[in-house]
Amino acid sequence: MKKIVTLSHGSGGKTTQDFIKDHILSRFDFPPLEELLDSALLEFSGRLAFTTDAFVVRPIFFPGGDIGKLAVSGSVNDLAAVAAQPLFLSVSLILEEGLELEELDLVLESMKKTCDEVGMKLATGDTKVVEKGAGDKIYISTSGIGARKQNPDPRPGLIRPGDLILVTGGIGEHGIAVLQARERFFKDLEVNSDCAPLWPLVEILLKERVKIHAMRDPTRGGLATALSELARESNLCLEIEEEKIPVQETVRGACEMLGLDPLYLACEGRMIIILPPEDSLKGLNLLKEHPLGRGAVSIGRCLEKPPGIALLSTKIGGRRVLSPLAGEQLPRIC
Amino acid sequence: MKKIVTLSHGSGGKTTQDFIKDHILSRFDFPPLEELLDSALLEFSGRLAFTTDAFVVRPIFFPGGDIGKLAVSGSVNDLAAVAAQPLFLSVSLILEEGLELEELDLVLESMKKTCDEVGMKLATGDTKVVEKGAGDKIYISTSGIGARKQNPDPRPGLIRPGDLILVTGGIGEHGIAVLQARERFFKDLEVNSDCAPLWPLVEILLKERVKIHAMRDPTRGGLATALSELARESNLCLEIEEEKIPVQETVRGACEMLGLDPLYLACEGRMIIILPPEDSLKGLNLLKEHPLGRGAVSIGRCLEKPPGIALLSTKIGGRRVLSPLAGEQLPRIC
Repeated sequence: MKKIVTLSHGSGGKTTQDFIKDHILSRFDFPPLEELLDSALLEFSGRLAFTTDAFVVRPIFFPGGDIGKLAVSGSVNDLAAVAAQPLFLSVSLILEEGLELEELDLVLESMKKTCDEVGMKLATGDTKVVEKGAGDKIYISTSGIGARKQNPDPRPGLIRPGDLILVTGGIGEHGIAVLQARERFFKDLEVNSDCAPLWPLVEILLKERVKIHAMRDPTRGGLATALSELARESNLCLEIEEEKIPVQETVRGACEMLGLDPLYLACEGRMIIILPPEDSLKGLNLLKEHPLGRGAVSIGRCLEKPPGIALLSTKIGGRRVLSPLAGEQLPRIC
Repeated sequence: MKKIVTLSHGSGGKTTQDFIKDHILSRFDFPPLEELLDSALLEFSGRLAFTTDAFVVRPIFFPGGDIGKLAVSGSVNDLAAVAAQPLFLSVSLILEEGLELEELDLVLESMKKTCDEVGMKLATGDTKVVEKGAGDKIYISTSGIGARKQNPDPRPGLIRPGDLILVTGGIGEHGIAVLQARERFFKDLEVNSDCAPLWPLVEILLKERVKIHAMRDPTRGGLATALSELARESNLCLEIEEEKIPVQETVRGACEMLGLDPLYLACEGRMIIILPPEDSLKGLNLLKEHPLGRGAVSIGRCLEKPPGIALLSTKIGGRRVLSPLAGEQLPRIC
């Protein structure tokens, strides 16, 4: 019989302790249970970044990733977006009674692998269990602590007219991959989520002293929502060109069939990077040399006017405003 | 009609932004939405503590508290247990579609109040919404960053034979308060949860230079589980005397009726504090002067043998081993 998660895994008693010892501590190179305290004891000096995210993606496994990889990547990318090196992670698990332990192990293994890819250490965690029907397999909240590596920190206030807008790869792949895994709308569609931890990509730019004015990872709400936020926050116009936006053929086709706009689909392993023009070619070339940035392209530029809005210039020469996502395109995509 | 949470509150688009602006930023004295980045930018130097907890208590309101007060207190108390001053909080909300916004506002208000009581600042957050039936109103995960204020940090390894064991107030009140709110087993039972942020209590001891050898807040699994952990981790014997353990008459009565053991019921505003004998009287008096420690008492002491176990000496002169909680006494108590 398959082993499953029971309410006693969240009791705080013997079963919880055994679960933590057998499934978490050994996997994440922790000190023994005997040395665990209520809080992790760490050292940190200087400019710190702190972020948190909840993950409720359905299904928990999808082509190219799973909720574990997603949860670690999410916090890593929020740190990377302020040029912060990911150092310490906290993980809070809300498990549904009846979840197969084997599935949970796969998710934990995937978290460990993703942490290792960026040199992040799991510092602390918590596990709660809710009754069958009061959750949906696994919900994960992660928080990350990072060390800010660029001074001044990248932020919309640094964006200047003339800056170029890069995106590090094709958009919408995560959205379509999860939707396909969930609904099986298409018989043969194969799209992998772009889900990935992007710190290595940002680190290269920082090491090579490429000046970064602003970054944002276009997750929920997609590229269009992220650009409209950046435009509003910088009080400049961010104009992108439709024909330059990288969209995989399969993603484009699926979107047409389903009436979805790829500009509003979630990415989980892409970064929008805004650079001064003199740094942009160097930056673009560095990105392209790394597997996570192979599809990087320049998609537009920043203008003085009209202030506070993002614009799309279409293939046929029109211009339209990119508004933030209204309503909900795809629930539980991340 | 009452306003409710919809899936679009978690979309990352316009509704999410409006929700964050109207319900979170204004309440928590945040900078305007325009200045929010993917991570909070903070400064920190030195000895840091980092903790996280998930909260799934049912119901979300109970006498003496609610899930918001509980979630902030939980992280504060985990920091306090390593003598760390709570500085920065992250909050991740998983909301069930259909939750009344009015209820959510009460919870957020309560979080703000609890943060203020200890001078902790909300630094960053995230909100996700799951479909009706895939959650239960509100799940909250909090993470806390604190500054460690005692060197060496309190930890089981510092405990010495002869040390005294204090508890800061009556046990089991949280467990019974939640159970009564959930099941209404008793018509007239009035027990308030002890749920509270304990940093102010610990701060007093530190300021008055009381040496603290170890602390733990006896949440899930209760006093017995926490003591058995501390015994194992220190490899000493922790012996407490049954007749000294503070249990409110109403809690004792309810436990007898329901066949529950108060030693295994969760507290959410109590701390076990282990001190060298020469500091214990001063410590106890300081605790008693503060409203959160008015019920503080010495309940036992640490012995060399038998190593690694917690013992209860009973009123009739027997001794029994306190094991960690086996199975699950009360699911979703915190």
